[in-house]
Amino acid sequence: MGESVTRPHVLALDAMLGRSFPVLDDGFVRLVDYMGDDAAIVQAARVSYGAGTKRVHKDRGLIRYLMRHSHTTPFEMCEIKLHVRVPMDTWRQWIRHRTASVNEYSTRYSVAIDMAQHTPPDQWRIQAMRNRQGSSGNLSTDLGDRLSVAESALHSTARRVYKARLAVGVAREQARKDLPLSTYTEAYWKINLHNLLHFLSLRMDEAAQQEIRAYATIIGEEIVAKWVPLVWEAFLDYRLRAVRLSRIEVEIIKTLQVNPEEACSLAATMPVREREELETTLHALGLKGCHD
Amino acid sequence: MGESVTRPHVLALDAMLGRSFPVLDDGFVRLVDYMGDDAAIVQAARVSYGAGTKRVHKDRGLIRYLMRHSHTTPFEMCEIKLHVRVPMDTWRQWIRHRTASVNEYSTRYSVAIDMAQHTPPDQWRIQAMRNRQGSSGNLSTDLGDRLSVAESALHSTARRVYKARLAVGVAREQARKDLPLSTYTEAYWKINLHNLLHFLSLRMDEAAQQEIRAYATIIGEEIVAKWVPLVWEAFLDYRLRAVRLSRIEVEIIKTLQVNPEEACSLAATMPVREREELETTLHALGLKGCHD
Amino acid sequence: MGESVTRPHVLALDAMLGRSFPVLDDGFVRLVDYMGDDAAIVQAARVSYGAGTKRVHKDRGLIRYLMRHSHTTPFEMCEIKLHVRVPMDTWRQWIRHRTASVNEYSTRYSVAIDMAQHTPPDQWRIQAMRNRQGSSGNLSTDLGDRLSVAESALHSTARRVYKARLAVGVAREQARKDLPLSTYTEAYWKINLHNLLHFLSLRMDEAAQQEIRAYATIIGEEIVAKWVPLVWEAFLDYRLRAVRLSRIEVEIIKTLQVNPEEACSLAATMPVREREELETTLHALGLKGCHD
Amino acid sequence: MGESVTRPHVLALDAMLGRSFPVLDDGFVRLVDYMGDDAAIVQAARVSYGAGTKRVHKDRGLIRYLMRHSHTTPFEMCEIKLHVRVPMDTWRQWIRHRTASVNEYSTRYSVAIDMAQHTPPDQWRIQAMRNRQGSSGNLSTDLGDRLSVAESALHSTARRVYKARLAVGVAREQARKDLPLSTYTEAYWKINLHNLLHFLSLRMDEAAQQEIRAYATIIGEEIVAKWVPLVWEAFLDYRLRAVRLSRIEVEIIKTLQVNPEEACSLAATMPVREREELETTLHALGLKGCHD
Repeated sequence: MGESVTRPHVLALDAMLGRSFPVLDDGFVRLVDYMGDDAAIVQAARVSYGAGTKRVHKDRGLIRYLMRHSHTTPFEMCEIKLHVRVPMDTWRQWIRHRTASVNEYSTRYSVAIDMAQHTPPDQWRIQAMRNRQGSSGNLSTDLGDRLSVAESALHSTARRVYKARLAVGVAREQARKDLPLSTYTEAYWKINLHNLLHFLSLRMDEAAQQEIRAYATIIGEEIVAKWVPLVWEAFLDYRLRAVRLSRIEVEIIKTLQVNPEEACSLAATMPVREREELETTLHALGLKGCHD
Repeated sequence: MGESVTRPHVLALDAMLGRSFPVLDDGFVRLVDYMGDDAAIVQAARVSYGAGTKRVHKDRGLIRYLMRHSHTTPFEMCEIKLHVRVPMDTWRQWIRHRTASVNEYSTRYSVAIDMAQHTPPDQWRIQAMRNRQGSSGNLSTDLGDRLSVAESALHSTARRVYKARLAVGVAREQARKDLPLSTYTEAYWKINLHNLLHFLSLRMDEAAQQEIRAYATIIGEEIVAKWVPLVWEAFLDYRLRAVRLSRIEVEIIKTLQVNPEEACSLAATMPVREREELETTLHALGLKGCHD
Repeated sequence: MGESVTRPHVLALDAMLGRSFPVLDDGFVRLVDYMGDDAAIVQAARVSYGAGTKRVHKDRGLIRYLMRHSHTTPFEMCEIKLHVRVPMDTWRQWIRHRTASVNEYSTRYSVAIDMAQHTPPDQWRIQAMRNRQGSSGNLSTDLGDRLSVAESALHSTARRVYKARLAVGVAREQARKDLPLSTYTEAYWKINLHNLLHFLSLRMDEAAQQEIRAYATIIGEEIVAKWVPLVWEAFLDYRLRAVRLSRIEVEIIKTLQVNPEEACSLAATMPVREREELETTLHALGLKGCHD
Repeated sequence: MGESVTRPHVLALDAMLGRSFPVLDDGFVRLVDYMGDDAAIVQAARVSYGAGTKRVHKDRGLIRYLMRHSHTTPFEMCEIKLHVRVPMDTWRQWIRHRTASVNEYSTRYSVAIDMAQHTPPDQWRIQAMRNRQGSSGNLSTDLGDRLSVAESALHSTARRVYKARLAVGVAREQARKDLPLSTYTEAYWKINLHNLLHFLSLRMDEAAQQEIRAYATIIGEEIVAKWVPLVWEAFLDYRLRAVRLSRIEVEIIKTLQVNPEEACSLAATMPVREREELETTLHALGLKGCHD
């Protein structure tokens, strides 16, 4: 374990320190500090596996092995600290990830940030019918125009009420109570790589809301991909772009090869939603489904 | 370790299951489920200490010993689950406690709760001068009247905008973006007793914002006090009503007994804020300070 | 949200309270307390999803949906407390799961448990060649006899040394320092269902060491399966018996259907270990591999 | 928030990277990496408190304020990674701190470290009578000689049995089962500063076992004190050398000033152990107790 006597560092990240990546209309992600690199993960894994494994695995192979077999502790050996600016509405989702360290801008101590997220006329999204929590396509710009105008008016009103309260001496902690959820906040957010990958796997997913997905994608593709390139590749291969087959899906695929009719009878016993997801999976694998 | 073969239960809690304690104008705390009691803590402590301690400590003494010496793990053996209704503004503080399990009402899936926290004219608080994050006293009712009227108008406007968005088909996840922070949300909140006591020690404190303090006080005094009465007593004695003396405060108190002048010279070297807090502490202990 | 006003309970679990399931030669798992059931998970999920989902999902469907899409927070709403007796060697692995609450028997306070795990002559396992951390098959009973005799002798010697130290007044905390790792310890272990499922997915796996697998299997099959049967079924389907396909495995399977030769060229570019695991996966799916 | 565009670093720590601090007869603590410094804590606190506080607090004052008022989140912004070599017996206590990231040397993958902790003849400690978990003074060297000889013999026997198992092909995961708890292990241990301070406050305490106290003291005094000197000073003042007075102790001290007799009647109502601890506290504060 003869590490060098300087801290591990990554040139691409050093060059990125302090730089802001813009997100949404007034948000950003900014790299403040980091600790570790691909090699730090390998180093930690090898203390577990001992000298014996040194010969067997090269770094890339070892990292892929760890990711594939969910040996996640070595990924905790890397840490990153970001400064982010995010609408409170998005922050409400973000903060649900409990494994990070957080210091958020306090509107008890200070006057709230004078900025709320605005929606351009062409970006009002339509409620999805099937997926009750999602959206699907955008409203017409005509309609969007009216919505955006009403949004601006509401922002102005809310801000005016807030300022009027402060002006007559209302405590900041109370004056803020009716700020819109779209108001921007800022925070330092520090998290280890294992927990960050979990965050990214959920928040880069297409089921995630568009706003937080925008942040997650920047963090993943602009920062993590350059920080720990071997980990990022393995993450895409085994997590983000992987497909999970359930016990019955395995059974059906197996049966499909020898007795398609029986396989389809088996599929017919599945609840509707599971059957639909099976069709999607079969399609992704280039296998003929039961409705083709 | 011959526990009885039914689950530990507490009559006072069983009688409270499903009952709502009102908080603020439209919030509540409701007991959904719990696990363990005072005896469960003693039981867990005794597996650690072994049979040897059985004779030494009676239950109350053991629980007080655990609390006094920060042997906190046995308190994790009790668990409680609450259903709460809270303004989002308060929830933003609440959710910072990362050691709980949470399922919150989703305004992606469902239309937001049609209720925001209202402030009566006599309850607008004045910004504290000294404590930058606090409040101190209330504004006049005259002024309060005007503020409450403006608050209602803002709530109506915001709600109208929200409904108009939904009416034209905007996705719920986006339509909600300008709801005021005062909008109520609901959640199931499950936490172990150790972490709950930590929450209570911070949120029942006078430095906590009045709104969350109202919730914490209900949880502490109406529920925890009846659930685990021995723990609650020890918590008040050794945590909530305890006083912590710093290294230099110990030194000064010691010196005060033999050489008051020297003690005051020592105090004079402290930074202003620390000196002020020293005076408060001396006062609480009935000791003569340097300015008396 | 009109829950009944008694705590949720599960008859099969109530009947099991206080009962010990033997594991290894002198270990056990014993149910001490639990909180919640299948319905508690559904209840928590519905507060998230709101009334809207009530009509869509029945309980079983909803639980399967949560498991399939890794919506894990509702599973945290159930909690279980076990009393276990485990060799310290196994406990060293067990305790690596950081999300549980633990009170372990203390050999500082009390004399160590006078029992170490013994290995019968026919259960000495052979070092696996391929899997550096595993075992594969058993040694001959002849050899095993000699090993078991030597093991007993070592246990006696170690215990004699321990007792001799205590007899002359050595502090328990120091006297214990040379007890064998096979010495039994006991603990109360409390964990929520989400974290327990994670524990089980790792420790029921065939890569887990046989000893801890024995404990995990008892906990899973004897307790969890009866406590939350719908969750258990979903866990088997989507976690324990599921198969994960990496990005390139998806690509290869897809290509196999239309151009087997090209698929095999693609497979040939993979590192040896990944290619071997691909063959295993294809075999599990009943698909023809490149070496068949 | 105009941080410089290089990572925060501390010269004294950079000079220490890779250096081993010896602990016990064959253990060590070695600094592998770190993140943040005193200023990083101030920076994170200021994002919370906003620009408003900039003028009020200087760095030292702010850090002391945070420590005094248990505003602990900014301390999470610093992180440290150590490589440690520790007897398994000590590691069993160490690993109970669940908030760290750990990769331990695996005796499934590799042959166990060929070294166990030895006790010199003059360091066998006597069981404390009062404190059931502690020790008090040392045995005579005559007796110690005999104990140390027996210890060496046991180590040799245990090691011989271990090697004999490996020699006939027993799997490493099973062969290790009877190694003495004194066998050394190694680990990478990464933890944030807040959690590290908690570890130190418990493990530098005189109630902690001597072995782990040796490690904690080295980490605290040799590493943390140089890494974040302002935090270290505040930690000593407000945590390690602070005195906590319970509600009744406050009451008694107050009464002592005006009516000593009444104060002593009050004290007489306390349970024996609490009364003894009161006497100790009064003594530490230079106040006359009831038995003086």
